[in-house]
Amino acid sequence: MKFKFEIIHKSKKSNARVGKIYTPHGIINTPSFVAVGTNGTIKALDNKIISSIGIELMFCNTYHLILQPGSKLIQKAGGIHKFINRSTPIITDSGGFQVFSLAFGSVASELKSKGAKKTNCTLLKITEDGATFRSYRDGTKVLLTPESSIQAQKDIGADIIIPLDELPPYHMDLKALERSLDRTHRWEKRSLDYHLKNRQNQAMYAVIHGGINKNLREKSSKYLTNLDFDGFAIGGSVGKNILEMIEMLKFTINHLPKDKPNHLLGIGDIASLQESIPLGLDTFDSSYPTKAARHGFVLTKSKGIKLTKKENEKSFSPIDKNCTCYTCQNYTLSYLHHLFKAKELTALSLASIHNLHFMVEYMKDIREKILNDEI
Amino acid sequence: MKFKFEIIHKSKKSNARVGKIYTPHGIINTPSFVAVGTNGTIKALDNKIISSIGIELMFCNTYHLILQPGSKLIQKAGGIHKFINRSTPIITDSGGFQVFSLAFGSVASELKSKGAKKTNCTLLKITEDGATFRSYRDGTKVLLTPESSIQAQKDIGADIIIPLDELPPYHMDLKALERSLDRTHRWEKRSLDYHLKNRQNQAMYAVIHGGINKNLREKSSKYLTNLDFDGFAIGGSVGKNILEMIEMLKFTINHLPKDKPNHLLGIGDIASLQESIPLGLDTFDSSYPTKAARHGFVLTKSKGIKLTKKENEKSFSPIDKNCTCYTCQNYTLSYLHHLFKAKELTALSLASIHNLHFMVEYMKDIREKILNDEI
Repeated sequence: MKFKFEIIHKSKKSNARVGKIYTPHGIINTPSFVAVGTNGTIKALDNKIISSIGIELMFCNTYHLILQPGSKLIQKAGGIHKFINRSTPIITDSGGFQVFSLAFGSVASELKSKGAKKTNCTLLKITEDGATFRSYRDGTKVLLTPESSIQAQKDIGADIIIPLDELPPYHMDLKALERSLDRTHRWEKRSLDYHLKNRQNQAMYAVIHGGINKNLREKSSKYLTNLDFDGFAIGGSVGKNILEMIEMLKFTINHLPKDKPNHLLGIGDIASLQESIPLGLDTFDSSYPTKAARHGFVLTKSKGIKLTKKENEKSFSPIDKNCTCYTCQNYTLSYLHHLFKAKELTALSLASIHNLHFMVEYMKDIREKILNDEI
Repeated sequence: MKFKFEIIHKSKKSNARVGKIYTPHGIINTPSFVAVGTNGTIKALDNKIISSIGIELMFCNTYHLILQPGSKLIQKAGGIHKFINRSTPIITDSGGFQVFSLAFGSVASELKSKGAKKTNCTLLKITEDGATFRSYRDGTKVLLTPESSIQAQKDIGADIIIPLDELPPYHMDLKALERSLDRTHRWEKRSLDYHLKNRQNQAMYAVIHGGINKNLREKSSKYLTNLDFDGFAIGGSVGKNILEMIEMLKFTINHLPKDKPNHLLGIGDIASLQESIPLGLDTFDSSYPTKAARHGFVLTKSKGIKLTKKENEKSFSPIDKNCTCYTCQNYTLSYLHHLFKAKELTALSLASIHNLHFMVEYMKDIREKILNDEI
């Protein structure tokens, strides 16, 4: 099956749409939550479970995969799907995000005034060619260029791939931001050119940059939509709070074609989803649901439950009586509370299953509401 | 179903036997490997998976359960089976082993000259009444007596329970060992008396002590087999190597009734199983297969595989081509190698599934061989 995006229904109430992304490994029903499986696995779960939960698209990180086990090994295994035993769609990023965020600190930690993670600062040099960083695994120097990132993503063989971009720090003056954006565009163009020489049945999404500057967001959208990309991902900082984010997304998406899929990079909490789906965003990757689960926080239709709280100790019902997930079908809040208190690894798996199932059901519900023009 | 032990076949070649232990929660086919789920879960797996693997008896630790979540909470939940969602048989120990081994260090670490684990030395006092220790969880003092241990085990509600015993250090002079044995016998008698007042459809196995002294092992066997126990567990130190162990087990088992089940406490590695099954031992609990799995060591019919070894990196076949376990059916050595290298929790679960499945199949094969008088 070739890559294709089909819009099934456009809401009469907003720019929300229900669609289907066709990929060589099956269909993604949009809007869709994309689970993050950095190293080729969702943490604390295995890929057969992930498939049974109904996660239609999984996000793997090229940065991690090129360092361990290496993209050539994955190619030798027959590609990422075969290597990790997942028969359904996979997307990989370029590796750029990790290289730059390890150096500058993530936008989130910068906003929280945590500064850069000094210990992991492995970025050695940025030139027009690419970014040189030191492997956190064995200390060797690695040069990531647009071409090497795409080649790695070709070896890995995900259904959707992403061009190399530069991730500017949140606080950067306009001149520097403009220079960074221009370089990102040159890198994305080089990535696309390399990709088009050998599509290998993969789709490529551009990454729209420009930070919190509307002129630059517009410039980025105009430049990238003129190139032969299959979809558009919104990257970089989109603001320091949800209101700024909505404003920037609304503005940016107006400059994107209506008939191609839009992805929001790294954001997938419920509040952000609720605000950005009506703007016309289709897919969202986030490690939030699984990370929250490992910290004992499970998602519910109300405000969620912190499993370690005393009030759950004697609650012999599931997280949610109406939930059909494996965890709710088999285990009580009391038992989950106990497993977290006893620091059992089993707790992390069971909470992760619930949260991913919650996201799948949440998105099903969203699609239903869009079909009924309620969103 | 009431507790009953039925011998299906006695080998013509040895004292090995194939049997069935009937319990209120189903049948245990013996010889059987008993998986250790200290806190009411096998580490890194959940109880539905454990059942699907075919683990017929699970061993939970009363010491841990009384400290977290507490035996009364388990009773309130409807008993351990309901609390942890396991419908098949469970055995609990008395808590004595942990209290004493935390104080004196385990026999294994003593033999390896590691000395006692000083940091965890929580045993405060031993009197005729029982043992007082400090909770590692909240620092409170806890008095464990034969009666309180059995009451906790009644609240927990396992199918098979164990009387409180004193675990003497490996190096103890004869006089002290004799005194310890006499106290253990008084404690076991008190445990049994308390149990018989309210059997609650549970069976109780005595624990034969006497360390590495044959006279004392004989004395212990004679004393305990005269009481109304449903089975016999061999506890304490049985020697500092496998030859000493076989010698002591052979000697001890001669003094045990032929028609009751024999359990070997805390030993379940393949070499020990091979030597002790022909002596007439029926069940074996050990955390070895799951602990080894979490350290990346998987069991095979030959010498096992250390998954992190370089030689597995490019091996795109399962751990064992003929293995029918979930892990071997779905994942390759190369992927498992990668998951361990990437420090993914998923690795621990997948390796544990394989090792437990291996033990179940190993025991099936042993039973078949006994039925054919090959063992």
